[in-house]
Amino acid sequence: LADARAGLTRRARGRPKEGEEARFGAREVLLRAGVAGRAEEGFASTGLDEILKRVSIPKGSFYYYFKSKEDFGLALIDRYNDVFARRLSNTYEDPERTPLERLYKFVHDAENGMRRYNFERGCLVGNLGQEMGNLPPSFRARLIDVFEDWQRKTAQCIRNAQLNGELPRELDADLAAQFFWIGWEGAVLRAKLERSATPLRLFADGFFRGLKA
Amino acid sequence: LADARAGLTRRARGRPKEGEEARFGAREVLLRAGVAGRAEEGFASTGLDEILKRVSIPKGSFYYYFKSKEDFGLALIDRYNDVFARRLSNTYEDPERTPLERLYKFVHDAENGMRRYNFERGCLVGNLGQEMGNLPPSFRARLIDVFEDWQRKTAQCIRNAQLNGELPRELDADLAAQFFWIGWEGAVLRAKLERSATPLRLFADGFFRGLKA
Repeated sequence: LADARAGLTRRARGRPKEGEEARFGAREVLLRAGVAGRAEEGFASTGLDEILKRVSIPKGSFYYYFKSKEDFGLALIDRYNDVFARRLSNTYEDPERTPLERLYKFVHDAENGMRRYNFERGCLVGNLGQEMGNLPPSFRARLIDVFEDWQRKTAQCIRNAQLNGELPRELDADLAAQFFWIGWEGAVLRAKLERSATPLRLFADGFFRGLKA
Repeated sequence: LADARAGLTRRARGRPKEGEEARFGAREVLLRAGVAGRAEEGFASTGLDEILKRVSIPKGSFYYYFKSKEDFGLALIDRYNDVFARRLSNTYEDPERTPLERLYKFVHDAENGMRRYNFERGCLVGNLGQEMGNLPPSFRARLIDVFEDWQRKTAQCIRNAQLNGELPRELDADLAAQFFWIGWEGAVLRAKLERSATPLRLFADGFFRGLKA
């Protein structure tokens, strides 16, 4: 979600750190800058030339690693999901917390992540989903898969909270997880628009109230 | 939301009907095609030249009516909201239905509206909100105002359902309306991505269940 570019400090959109290319290679710099940039701005609306110019990587290097802008976009979805799904798993399996506390923790971390980037950086997967009308058709199935993966992980955490007696047994964990991810992407969108955590909190509060009802 | 271009039959993105310009004038054609196109595709990612080419209107005519692409974008938000807020008021004040039935009706109509355009057309205001990173800053306050207007109207309908005994009196109508609009935009996004009504229904079902709990 926000803060996809963990460990890098805030600086101009997608501009690489001094020496980053030497350390990581051009492919890594492109993926890092691409994920950060695409969580902030559109994919279709940002030309490849502009992306390459920002990271000072020549076109030849780009085409050595990626067949096309489309191929690059698919790699960005994979990279974003690798980082994000791992973070989700870490939160949802945190042995220091109860399952319900882990769900709260996710929301709390997401808010901090967005705040760190002044609410300018949203969710790359949500952004691309919104842009589908301008994107290659190959993106559609990939983005749907990613949401389904996040939903499965969230459903499992909800089920653990049910087993633990923290949430009612009657609750349909799969439906609840789908409901969460459908609405949460709306909350990230509004938080970006309003540059405020209020939409995230408002949605999360309503969601958790509903879980317990 | 979907179907912003009520009364026009489905055809290629933003292409005007035969004789539309003669009947309505270039400004009206630009607004109609702009609203329809921008509910499907991005604003930042679609060049002015492309928009004008589709409706066969020369640049000179465009600049006679609009100072800039930004000015055109703000006019599109106003136009979309004029149509949408009127539709919302009609639904929420429908004397044939109880207040709770009116809320159901809105969701039902939105689903039909998206289906009519094969789930390719979403919500112009949600789309622009998602694109804020690429848009002129003047769009931000305008988009926030529009959401607040929709939320106010929805809160009033919820209050009427409370007065009518259809919803619990303890419910905070303003919070519930905010929750709805935050999550609903996420549902429209997912419905577009999946080209399916399922996300809309799933979100609406969960929302209404929460209202009554």
